Amino acid sequence: VAERESQIVLGIDPDPGALWPQADVESETALGEGPEPARRAAAAVLAHCRALIDATAPAVVAVKLQLARFELLGAPGRVALATVAEHARARGLLVIADGKRGDIDVTARAYAAALFAGADTPFGHVDGLRADLATVNPLMGLDALEPFVSCARESGAGVLVLVRTSNPGAADVEDLPVQDGGAVWERIAVLVASLGAVGGGEVVGATEPGHLARARELMPCACFLLPGVGAQGGRVEDLAPAFAAGRAGGLVTASRSIAGAYLALETGAAGARPAAAARAEAERLRETAWALSGA
Amino acid sequence: VAERESQIVLGIDPDPGALWPQADVESETALGEGPEPARRAAAAVLAHCRALIDATAPAVVAVKLQLARFELLGAPGRVALATVAEHARARGLLVIADGKRGDIDVTARAYAAALFAGADTPFGHVDGLRADLATVNPLMGLDALEPFVSCARESGAGVLVLVRTSNPGAADVEDLPVQDGGAVWERIAVLVASLGAVGGGEVVGATEPGHLARARELMPCACFLLPGVGAQGGRVEDLAPAFAAGRAGGLVTASRSIAGAYLALETGAAGARPAAAARAEAERLRETAWALSGA
Repeated sequence: VAERESQIVLGIDPDPGALWPQADVESETALGEGPEPARRAAAAVLAHCRALIDATAPAVVAVKLQLARFELLGAPGRVALATVAEHARARGLLVIADGKRGDIDVTARAYAAALFAGADTPFGHVDGLRADLATVNPLMGLDALEPFVSCARESGAGVLVLVRTSNPGAADVEDLPVQDGGAVWERIAVLVASLGAVGGGEVVGATEPGHLARARELMPCACFLLPGVGAQGGRVEDLAPAFAAGRAGGLVTASRSIAGAYLALETGAAGARPAAAARAEAERLRETAWALSGA
Repeated sequence: VAERESQIVLGIDPDPGALWPQADVESETALGEGPEPARRAAAAVLAHCRALIDATAPAVVAVKLQLARFELLGAPGRVALATVAEHARARGLLVIADGKRGDIDVTARAYAAALFAGADTPFGHVDGLRADLATVNPLMGLDALEPFVSCARESGAGVLVLVRTSNPGAADVEDLPVQDGGAVWERIAVLVASLGAVGGGEVVGATEPGHLARARELMPCACFLLPGVGAQGGRVEDLAPAFAAGRAGGLVTASRSIAGAYLALETGAAGARPAAAARAEAERLRETAWALSGA
């Protein structure tokens, strides 16, 4: 964060039906094996993601890859995912794998190996995605978090635990009031705080702007992943409490507001080109968050 | 269940380091593209899974595929996953995709499309896994469940919502006492009951034997997925309350106790061959559960 003077995370959430116009051109070489539609879609998605990263890299510190979008494209999607992660790393960016996995024991270790360092098998070492951070779901409790945390630790990576999510349905379970006081999400925050530092960084709480001050109280050292900026209606200015723990106390994600910035501009204007508009929006977010975090 | 006189679900959770001995032989043809170790491991895993399904199919009603194990093997793992699912279908078995996904909105729809019917894109229709059931994590609330439920409904499939899991850590969040009475998992059970019937089947609660009677009270019509039998220490005999809703009121999963049955037998004995031992164990479970459900 300090090096790049940015807390902005580029959310990569590619809809094959809404890629940047020029990305289609590159899709003629299908990716991987299997039925043609998935291979062509994966190639187009890859071209789109590369263009999006190239346009915004100077303004952002990380990419957040929405795994669902790549999984939809089967084996070619998995090839595209690894290639996008590699492309982001080559631009000096951290890679956040957003899959919200949660399971116990050997299953959690298999997920963690897939997302971080890979695993040794009798057939040789199989590569992982080499993510720097991965989102994890804590519903199943500490024994579902620990395998992710220890695998992350071994590879110098970190874990982002869902604490209070920003969707309306979060009220259904996360906000339930617990008998001895507080809500379910506050108990989860206490669990997260108990996990301590991970790798070079911290355990990270993915939380909601409206609950930031309380979350910071419960997780004084965690870095927060703060979604909901841009298309989902949040404002960077509301995120100040996250930065009470320092400039890397909050990472601010934006997906559609960056990739789709050109759609909001007048057609035909120079600024309406997807790459230029995305770069401008990412830079605007960067400046706002950086100024806010230094205040 | 009625047709096959079985409630047994074969859990497929292949560790590349503990495959059936004969599976290695078939691994010479590597699967898919990419680095050799993942391709060879995926080919060996596929051979193992096929042998396991062939050995036990007459005694089981479904397979439950542990997605983490396949994800660890990258793009070749995704090819193996689809091939295993197809193999199970060809043997007349239902396919349960155990990925415990949970997310909202377009992300949930992408996961659901990947697991069920696929999706139409400008590049043509991309295939889904065509699962009959998929496990889902309800932490984020109803708006994280609904996209899965509606996609399942459209393709005649069902959703298995985690209600009370069988790991020790389940106490950390799922068992938290809620202010107005009951535990978090009981509130989740009420949410699940509110979702109603899905496709040809029902919304399914993945629950724990010790909480079965209460779960049945809260979800009178749901079919329960009952893990923890065999290697995890549970006993089929404890599952009676699930069948209060009928013979398909409970699906009983077993993974390691079936695939690893041969390890418990005396080396050299005819019964120690993996396939014969797995078949015998699956049949033993089938008889016990079937008798119990008709009592």
